[in-house]
Amino acid sequence: MKERAEVLAERLEEALESANWGFVDQLIELPAPDLAEVIEHLQDPEMQAQVLNHLEEPLAAVILDYLEPSRAEEILDHLSEEKAALLLEQLPSDDAAQIVAALEDEKAESLLNQMDPEDAQEVRELLEYAPNTAGRLMIQQYARLHPSWTVRYALDYLRHIDPDVETMNVLYLVDERGRLVGVCSLRELVTADPDTPLEQIMKPEFISVKTQTDQEEVAQLLSKYDLLALPVLDEVGRMQGIVTIDDMVDVLVSEATEDVLKMSAVDPSHEPYLSLSPWETALKRARWLVILFGAAILTTSVMSRYEKDIEKVSQLAVFIPLLIGMGGNAGAQTTTTITRSLALGELRLRHFWRVLGRELLTGLSVGVLIGGIGYLFALVFLHNMNLAVTVALSQVLIIMWAKTVGATLPMIAKRLNIDPALMSAPFITTFVDATGLVLYFGLAKIIMGI
Amino acid sequence: MKERAEVLAERLEEALESANWGFVDQLIELPAPDLAEVIEHLQDPEMQAQVLNHLEEPLAAVILDYLEPSRAEEILDHLSEEKAALLLEQLPSDDAAQIVAALEDEKAESLLNQMDPEDAQEVRELLEYAPNTAGRLMIQQYARLHPSWTVRYALDYLRHIDPDVETMNVLYLVDERGRLVGVCSLRELVTADPDTPLEQIMKPEFISVKTQTDQEEVAQLLSKYDLLALPVLDEVGRMQGIVTIDDMVDVLVSEATEDVLKMSAVDPSHEPYLSLSPWETALKRARWLVILFGAAILTTSVMSRYEKDIEKVSQLAVFIPLLIGMGGNAGAQTTTTITRSLALGELRLRHFWRVLGRELLTGLSVGVLIGGIGYLFALVFLHNMNLAVTVALSQVLIIMWAKTVGATLPMIAKRLNIDPALMSAPFITTFVDATGLVLYFGLAKIIMGI
Repeated sequence: MKERAEVLAERLEEALESANWGFVDQLIELPAPDLAEVIEHLQDPEMQAQVLNHLEEPLAAVILDYLEPSRAEEILDHLSEEKAALLLEQLPSDDAAQIVAALEDEKAESLLNQMDPEDAQEVRELLEYAPNTAGRLMIQQYARLHPSWTVRYALDYLRHIDPDVETMNVLYLVDERGRLVGVCSLRELVTADPDTPLEQIMKPEFISVKTQTDQEEVAQLLSKYDLLALPVLDEVGRMQGIVTIDDMVDVLVSEATEDVLKMSAVDPSHEPYLSLSPWETALKRARWLVILFGAAILTTSVMSRYEKDIEKVSQLAVFIPLLIGMGGNAGAQTTTTITRSLALGELRLRHFWRVLGRELLTGLSVGVLIGGIGYLFALVFLHNMNLAVTVALSQVLIIMWAKTVGATLPMIAKRLNIDPALMSAPFITTFVDATGLVLYFGLAKIIMGI
Repeated sequence: MKERAEVLAERLEEALESANWGFVDQLIELPAPDLAEVIEHLQDPEMQAQVLNHLEEPLAAVILDYLEPSRAEEILDHLSEEKAALLLEQLPSDDAAQIVAALEDEKAESLLNQMDPEDAQEVRELLEYAPNTAGRLMIQQYARLHPSWTVRYALDYLRHIDPDVETMNVLYLVDERGRLVGVCSLRELVTADPDTPLEQIMKPEFISVKTQTDQEEVAQLLSKYDLLALPVLDEVGRMQGIVTIDDMVDVLVSEATEDVLKMSAVDPSHEPYLSLSPWETALKRARWLVILFGAAILTTSVMSRYEKDIEKVSQLAVFIPLLIGMGGNAGAQTTTTITRSLALGELRLRHFWRVLGRELLTGLSVGVLIGGIGYLFALVFLHNMNLAVTVALSQVLIIMWAKTVGATLPMIAKRLNIDPALMSAPFITTFVDATGLVLYFGLAKIIMGI
């Protein structure tokens, strides 16, 4: 599939260059998500805009909706303002809000002013909620029924409902003041006796979120309760909209990506890799590297304390990269496992001592194994018994220490309400480097008597 | 919420120890997913089994269904076989199959023999499909209609459908031979004229998967096309079942976790952290550490080549942890970003040269920044101009090199159809260590004339 989209994109590029609109018209036959994928593969936003300009409005709007908001924003920049406003009007208000949020303020304001005032108002309202909250992501078109209606009346009402209503798998029963009093599924409605009043078939207990609820919590609730949508209420229980599972799937995937990147000391970005300029990328990377450099200076000053020892026994230096490298690897394993388990809720803070005990045990057994191999290796390599013992013992202790630090720091961070993912593998590694060297040279002094 | 479940679990433990069943009966008032969460917090599978034994069967089955399959399997081990079989019968067949798959073969066979033959047959059929395929995850209870029926007839049929049918938001139209010929939503049915035949309102084009399609692909299709369920077909297009979005949300989350762990050189496990014994954990960790140790030996033999140089200028050793540590950090940033972008489909192989160019540029700018700080630091610290220049230049080159390797290896892996996540940060780090040292000592020879 992916390969096909790329091939079609290349042919589309050629067609556009030779103004061969026949090929474009052929592509319209594709399902919209596939056509969107082809358009996404065009490198030039100018070309992407050309295609959207050529398509009829409803289709162009659907395509725009399938693109990443940051990509959609780029394309809008290459369309006339009238056209851009027309397309935005036809998007669900939550998706339009996401795109408008990515625009520069001035451009956003001028587009909103050109849009149909009612549609623009909806977008403005959504933009008042903070990013990454239920309020920002919710859809305002949902099926809203009255509890006193009969099933027959409700079905008749649904038959004539605004086709903009995206989903009616779940129906929301709302009282005169706009407060949500119950929910029922379309299935329950269809299978109920036509003369029953809705209040008899509705479920008066339901899971809901507030407009300011964080998107990650919304996603976890949907997944825990196996729901297709969640109602979003304001402070006094009035229904403001719904968040649907398909939007939440995107949230779950992007939150996982954020965690992965943070764990490797990269500031997460919501933009795809290629849409950031190398300078932006460099800036994001540099921030963390400078912090880590600060930590590495600690290592260097530790090393300089032992320079005299290295002068005496230069062989000691040979094993430094091995020892601290393995410490870093062992620590990275643990910190990633613990951080991810905390994120998935498999581990809680009260497990702290249990986790510590396990990691010490794991560290001891893995350490003895690696230390043992290290001992043989040092012995064969250097024919220096004392040095071999020093290397082997240091390796055991450094691995145990790395696993202890790797388990402890993310849990302490969580306790202090800091994101555990910030206790990233590089951070743990750098910290273990410095302390591991103290262990190594300390043991060397004792065993080798330098 | 989480905190509440823990508190309730502790009180439940006390209640069970003093045989205070009144408290258990109070807990039954909780929504099933919450009750499941409380039971999950009990540490002892024996106690968990006690609670399930006490609950009425339909509720006990629902609770079992909300637990992790591996956890559910542990509990089944503590129930009588009759009870276990009765509970399994009441689960959707896909979930029952997941639990049975986690049991030992002998136990599984004996449970299946005690189950209602029809239910057991369904489970056996699912188990014939490979794990992690659509066949293994599909539900066999779905709404199956005939294209020649009228809307009125279909609605009447749905009113009397088997309540086991989990979802009927999407309806499947199947011909005499069992082949899927179209789909329509319950909404379309409800809003259509009652006398229309279904074939007039159905969509004859639909996205489907095969029984052997990998779950990751299924999840991506559901998410790309914003679908709630996908039909699963056999080789000749006969409908075998459906996979629903709520099961796929779990797949997306666990695939993300797998990637995270692999990237830190941990063999992913489908079991929660605490349910593995420390020995199992140690084994999983040790495998990768031994491989990385092999790579680290390379570093050590590189180091030993330069032992004479260290003997001459022991100050050189002081900067080794700093230089290779920063190289590792810079490489980890890149490899994680690239691996994740490949997994999300944001990057393709054809972007190779573009990625390489970007990473070289990013590496150069970040390297000059860090190298510059490193230069000042080395100068202030050691008052040795030549060494400071050597350290600074090495830092620039090592960071550029690390970013090149970090970008190249995952893409090469992908090209060779190896999982790019296996080119983990620890692997890249160890590789960069060895080559970074060659750069450093090479520059030292040139600049400092050793």
